[in-house]
Amino acid sequence: MKKSKRERQEELKKTIEASPFTTDEDLAKHFDVSIQTIRLDRMELSIPELRERIKSVATQEWNETVKALPIEEVIGEVVDLELDMRAISIFDVKPEHVFSRNHIARGHHLFAQANSLAVAVINDDLALTAKSSIEFTRQVKLGERVVAKANVLGEDEKGRTIVKVQSLVGQEEVFSGTFEMYRSNL
Amino acid sequence: MKKSKRERQEELKKTIEASPFTTDEDLAKHFDVSIQTIRLDRMELSIPELRERIKSVATQEWNETVKALPIEEVIGEVVDLELDMRAISIFDVKPEHVFSRNHIARGHHLFAQANSLAVAVINDDLALTAKSSIEFTRQVKLGERVVAKANVLGEDEKGRTIVKVQSLVGQEEVFSGTFEMYRSNL
Repeated sequence: MKKSKRERQEELKKTIEASPFTTDEDLAKHFDVSIQTIRLDRMELSIPELRERIKSVATQEWNETVKALPIEEVIGEVVDLELDMRAISIFDVKPEHVFSRNHIARGHHLFAQANSLAVAVINDDLALTAKSSIEFTRQVKLGERVVAKANVLGEDEKGRTIVKVQSLVGQEEVFSGTFEMYRSNL
Repeated sequence: MKKSKRERQEELKKTIEASPFTTDEDLAKHFDVSIQTIRLDRMELSIPELRERIKSVATQEWNETVKALPIEEVIGEVVDLELDMRAISIFDVKPEHVFSRNHIARGHHLFAQANSLAVAVINDDLALTAKSSIEFTRQVKLGERVVAKANVLGEDEKGRTIVKVQSLVGQEEVFSGTFEMYRSNL
């Protein structure tokens, strides 16, 4: 049985609060309604569209600058950054990122997004990946938007910074990785 | 003390037999002589130049075709392949693969070479990476040639194929990784 409009709108609000980068497409699928319905719900609830939500996150909270590499060398678009703490980037899967046969995103692009975010979050002029342990938890398809979230967990006994990255499409985890980062400590 | 010419030439022969993709530059560094000396040594020993050595490996031993993806989607040039057994590819580090600041190769390119080789070695129409554990053991610089060697170790209890990839510049390991590959088993 479908949810009532009121129920749906309440849940929709919570969902967007928890995952501000969820697309209308994902929401439509999640609530089993049309994209148009989601748009109308958002308008009634005064929730701005995704682009605006991203911008607002970026300008409200993102007062820091990437240090370890020029921002344009980050794979994906950085939308949130607190150096040595956390970072978020979004990456849209385009035709050049997928296997031609089955339109599944190639692993190294998801890795590149996560790995470059792990570099970007480091508050140092030099950051290099020493080790990494990763998992591809579900296939990502052409056209999907991948949101990667990096969290700095701390340092290990060798002085390397441990960064955990989780990548999501909508609410679903598609990739997770732990990165051991070497840094110059200058 | 430098080695005598005879000693050097004997060692040179063994080195090239063990690592046929070693460049003259690497050999010159290894034996602490000029590149010209290495070239003369090779001529006296009738050892063809690298390009020819690669071609000869490719035509003599490589009678199989990549199945899991179109060959042009492999990152790097596949020079040896025995499906479900082993594969070798070479990848030249160009300006677009390095950090602009320090000319160190970006991790995701080394990962892409190794990961796509792990896909290419699978004798199946569908192969996807499930998990991977990797290590960047030394920095790779602009202009270096990375030789990746994939070996299929077997299957784990979930029926996933375990592929070990080691990447070298000259004799030195620069990257190693273990890839757990999901395959269609059709």
